[in-house]
Amino acid sequence: MLQAVLLDISGVLHEDGQPLPGAVEAVSRLQASRLALRFVTNTSRKTGTRVHADLLAMGFELERQQVFTAPAAVRRYLEHHRLRPYLLVHEQLEPEFAGLDTGDPDAVVLCDAEQRLDYPHLDAAFQLLLEGAPLLAVGTNRYFRQHGALHLDAGPFVKALEYAAGIDAVVLGKPAAGFFHTVLDDMGVRPGAALMVGDDVEADVAAAMALGMQGALVRTGKYRDGDEARVPQAAVEDGLAELVDRLL
Amino acid sequence: MLQAVLLDISGVLHEDGQPLPGAVEAVSRLQASRLALRFVTNTSRKTGTRVHADLLAMGFELERQQVFTAPAAVRRYLEHHRLRPYLLVHEQLEPEFAGLDTGDPDAVVLCDAEQRLDYPHLDAAFQLLLEGAPLLAVGTNRYFRQHGALHLDAGPFVKALEYAAGIDAVVLGKPAAGFFHTVLDDMGVRPGAALMVGDDVEADVAAAMALGMQGALVRTGKYRDGDEARVPQAAVEDGLAELVDRLL
Repeated sequence: MLQAVLLDISGVLHEDGQPLPGAVEAVSRLQASRLALRFVTNTSRKTGTRVHADLLAMGFELERQQVFTAPAAVRRYLEHHRLRPYLLVHEQLEPEFAGLDTGDPDAVVLCDAEQRLDYPHLDAAFQLLLEGAPLLAVGTNRYFRQHGALHLDAGPFVKALEYAAGIDAVVLGKPAAGFFHTVLDDMGVRPGAALMVGDDVEADVAAAMALGMQGALVRTGKYRDGDEARVPQAAVEDGLAELVDRLL
Repeated sequence: MLQAVLLDISGVLHEDGQPLPGAVEAVSRLQASRLALRFVTNTSRKTGTRVHADLLAMGFELERQQVFTAPAAVRRYLEHHRLRPYLLVHEQLEPEFAGLDTGDPDAVVLCDAEQRLDYPHLDAAFQLLLEGAPLLAVGTNRYFRQHGALHLDAGPFVKALEYAAGIDAVVLGKPAAGFFHTVLDDMGVRPGAALMVGDDVEADVAAAMALGMQGALVRTGKYRDGDEARVPQAAVEDGLAELVDRLL
């Protein structure tokens, strides 16, 4: 019996800031239904507040409290463990970490830092990892899609630093179990009663299903032909509108 | 019966351009012995000609033909397969690839490019890999040692692009079997009659031993405490001088 739906954002609700066909109405129908609804993203080029505002501006109907972002999970981890981060994050994400002590860092935070993912910054992070600092990552996403092309996401850089220092990153966004459980706990729903909808076959769909959640793959965003073969038990639809038609 | 010795260069013969204690004399003794001798390096911040000249300037005695570098192996591969490279290489290495057609590239060459290993260059390489271009790498070395500190080598960036594009790189320097075999063939020696001496437990020692060569680990250069546990069958010495004392 389905009680809750988790929606990935980029590639499911919109592409490049343009709502996907039928997506705004599909979200309205879910909000009006008896199903609990949350929006979950590894996006690390903007803050959670900005993610919410941008969705409102596109016409989506949702509350700030329904948005769960991976960088916010990283901040919670830093605070809980009293860590001082070396921030390899996008400049637009800096407000998410405002007020944290970044002097004499003892942790590396790696998000989709784009212009900061250069040799000097990565090598500085490597020095900290050699000294025992943990590597905190939003996710292990391989790529994201923008303006019709795939681009490197944070995942490859996580793998690079893990390999260099011989360590394992602490992944705090999708596909980490903790991230999904935080969202499920917020709704008071057990995994089997929740459906994760995403365009990323690994970080969204396969990861959620590995926890006992239901999974749905949409053929929008970063979906690539043949992805469904990797999640044979998942629902597969052309887009969110078709999926919501099927659900409600 | 030992017939040949292969010496890694950086961290075995010198550190930061300063010959290691006893190394110059140790090389002279090997050259004067009945053993065939070759110098093998994944260094990708200078050309093979420059590697040779720098060793001469440090006082080492060797011929240009005794030096085998990974970037030269990459060039041979490009020429053999008629590939047009997108060169992520250090500016000092560019002469090694002079004269190759680099227009409309259909292969990615990843060396220790330092300042070119930034997001725009890596993302451009990723686009080519998605189109089916092979990724040619000098090696998968995790780090190198300079001025007493470890720094990111090309390996982590190879792993990043492999992970992003879901492909395997073609590795043409150490630890690739082909690289060692090229050197062994040049001497006309079978693997079991040759000794590889290195400070990199994986790319030098373990890789050579996996081919049936003998291996020796020296506790100089990038050696880290405990490395010998990973190659229990290897000879281990404090430095090249001690190793040559034992050999001759």
